[in-house]
Amino acid sequence: MKVKAAYYKGNKHFSVETITPNAPEAGEVQIAVAYCGICGTDLHVYLGHMDARIGNHRVIGHEMSGTVVAVGSGVSDYSAGDRVVVRPLVACGKCPACLRGHAHVCQNLTFLGLDTDGAFQERWNVPAHTLHKIPDNLSLDEAALIEPVAVACHDVKRGNVQAGEDVLVIGGGPIGMLVALAAKNAGGKVTVSEINPSRLAVAEKLGMKTINPKETDAVETIMADTNNKGMDVVFEVSGTQPGIDLMTAAASVRGRIVMVAIHATKPEVDVFQFFWKELEMIGARVYEPADYDDAIALVADGGIPAKEIITGVEALANIEHAFSDLSGNPQAMKILIQCAEETPA
Amino acid sequence: MKVKAAYYKGNKHFSVETITPNAPEAGEVQIAVAYCGICGTDLHVYLGHMDARIGNHRVIGHEMSGTVVAVGSGVSDYSAGDRVVVRPLVACGKCPACLRGHAHVCQNLTFLGLDTDGAFQERWNVPAHTLHKIPDNLSLDEAALIEPVAVACHDVKRGNVQAGEDVLVIGGGPIGMLVALAAKNAGGKVTVSEINPSRLAVAEKLGMKTINPKETDAVETIMADTNNKGMDVVFEVSGTQPGIDLMTAAASVRGRIVMVAIHATKPEVDVFQFFWKELEMIGARVYEPADYDDAIALVADGGIPAKEIITGVEALANIEHAFSDLSGNPQAMKILIQCAEETPA
Repeated sequence: MKVKAAYYKGNKHFSVETITPNAPEAGEVQIAVAYCGICGTDLHVYLGHMDARIGNHRVIGHEMSGTVVAVGSGVSDYSAGDRVVVRPLVACGKCPACLRGHAHVCQNLTFLGLDTDGAFQERWNVPAHTLHKIPDNLSLDEAALIEPVAVACHDVKRGNVQAGEDVLVIGGGPIGMLVALAAKNAGGKVTVSEINPSRLAVAEKLGMKTINPKETDAVETIMADTNNKGMDVVFEVSGTQPGIDLMTAAASVRGRIVMVAIHATKPEVDVFQFFWKELEMIGARVYEPADYDDAIALVADGGIPAKEIITGVEALANIEHAFSDLSGNPQAMKILIQCAEETPA
Repeated sequence: MKVKAAYYKGNKHFSVETITPNAPEAGEVQIAVAYCGICGTDLHVYLGHMDARIGNHRVIGHEMSGTVVAVGSGVSDYSAGDRVVVRPLVACGKCPACLRGHAHVCQNLTFLGLDTDGAFQERWNVPAHTLHKIPDNLSLDEAALIEPVAVACHDVKRGNVQAGEDVLVIGGGPIGMLVALAAKNAGGKVTVSEINPSRLAVAEKLGMKTINPKETDAVETIMADTNNKGMDVVFEVSGTQPGIDLMTAAASVRGRIVMVAIHATKPEVDVFQFFWKELEMIGARVYEPADYDDAIALVADGGIPAKEIITGVEALANIEHAFSDLSGNPQAMKILIQCAEETPA
C-alpha cells in the first residue's frame, strides 16, 4: 500500500510525498495517524531554527492520535483497532538520569518526531512502550491534545498546585492556556498574564482572571488581589525577559516558580528575591507516563474544553499552508493536521 | 554601672563609647555579651553599603554568645547565669508569611543588630523569645559561631542533602565553609569551588575535595568525578556571575541548587538548564528555631571544628582595626570581638 507523508525540507517548506510504509519491526506498532497538532517546537523547525538537529528530509509531528493497524513481533498489549496516543520519548536506560528513575529527562533522550520521523504522515511506526490507549468517549481530534495536556499536567505536578492556591500563568499561548486549565482543575485560583488581546479573550472565556501587563501594573494588581501575599505558584511560559522579571516579583514568600518556557538566551534573573523570599524555581520538561494518564482523564472528562483550544483542522496536503498561517496568525491557538484520510475502525 | 558599646558612625569608623545600659524591659533579657563574630553583613555596614538602613549611630553585631545577667518582668524561662546565644529575628506575626508559619522570612522582619542595636557592646537587651541556651561543654568563643552555623544548617535543610549525595559548594568563605561542613555532616560528598588559595587550603584541611576554577575546568572535573551525572546539590555562596554559570552547568538532572549568596545585581542565569535538566533552585535565608538547635548540637559535638574557623579574637576597643584588617586580609576566616571584659559565671 501507498500512503502520504509530509517531509520538512528546510526553509519553511514541506513536501508531501507518497511512500510505502515499512512493516512494524519487533516491539513496534503501526498506527494510522488520525490527527496531529502543530506544536510550538514544530513551528521552530518550520522557521529553520532547528535544522542542525532535524536535517532537511524529516517527517516531524508528535501531538497525535490514531488507531493501531498492525503490530510487530513480540507485541501483545496492543492489536489492530486500538485507539491510542503516543508518548514520544525513548530513553537510553543507561545514563545517570535513567538509572535514577528520571527516564523522561534521559541524558540521551530520543524524541520521536524530531530525532526520528514523526506523525505528519498516514502511517507511523513507534515502539509499543510509547503508547497509551484512550477511552471510547474521547474523540480522536480531542485526543490529539493529550500530548500538550500531558505537558501541562507535568508542569502542574512539578508546581504541586494545591486547592485554593493563587496561581499565575505568564504567557497565554497553547501551553500556557493548558497549564492554566490544568492548574484550575487542581483547585488553583488562576490568573493569566498575556499581552495578546485574542489570547486574553480566550483565557477569560475559559474562566480565568487576566492581566495585560502592557495596560496595568501586574505586580500591583497581584499584590492587591492577594492581600499583599503574592502568588503561591507562578508558571513562566512566556520565554521573555519581562516574564522573568514578573515571576520573581509576583511570587509570594516561599512561592514556587515553574520554568516551562524554553529560554534561548540567558535572561537576567532577580536572584536576590530567591534568597529574600525563599522562592523555589522548578524546571519542568515533557512528561512521565502518569502525566499521560492524568491528561487522558482530564480531556475525556471535559476538564479541558478541547473545542476551545483547537482553532482549526487542515488536511495533510495543506500542511505548509497550515504552518504559514499559524506563524502569522495571532488568533490561532492549536491547529490540527488530519493525517490518514480514512482512519480504520 | 557603665559599659562599653561600639557605635558604627559611618565611613569605616566605629566609636567605642561608655554608656549606662537600660534595664531589661518586660519580656526582655539582659546579656553580658562574651563574643560576637564579624559577619559579612557587618562588613557591608562598615564599608558604607547599608547606611540607608543602619544610619550613623548604631551598635551592630549579631553572631554572639553570652551570659544572662538580668531579666525583665514576665520572663520565667531564663535567669542570671544562663549561657545563651541569640537568634536575632523578631517577626511581626501578622503578615502573610508569618500567618503561614514562615516567621523567619516575615515580610516586616526586624533583624537585631541591624534594625536595632546589636551585640558589639558589653550588655545587650533582647526579647527572651530570641534566646537559645547552650550546653556546658560548649565554650563561649565557639558558641559565637552558632548563628552562622545555623545559617548553614538551614541551607543544608533547604537543599535536603542526603547521605551519599554529591555536593558542590561554590565559594569557600566563612558561610561556604560552614555549609560544606554541615553538608558533610549530613553525609554529603562535598567539593568546594574557590579561587582564594588560603581558603582552598582550609577546605582541604577540613577534608573537602576542592576545585580552583581558575586553574582547572570545573565542569569537566565534576562530570569526570561523578560519572557524567553532575552534582546532586549545589550551594551558590559566591555571589558572582561565574558562580551562577557554574551552578547550572555542574548540577545533575533533577539537581537542587540552593541560593545562599546575596546577589546585589541581576546575573544572567542559564534558565534553559532548569527546563532541560528539571533543576530546582531553592532560596535560603537566615534560620528557623530548629536550625539553632541543630547548630548548637553540631558545634557542641565537634561536627564543626570551630577552632579552624575562628582565625582571630580582638578586644572591643580594637573593633575598627579588626574590621579594617578583615576587609583586607584574604587569610582571615572568622574574627570574633570579645565584648564584655569579664563575663559573669
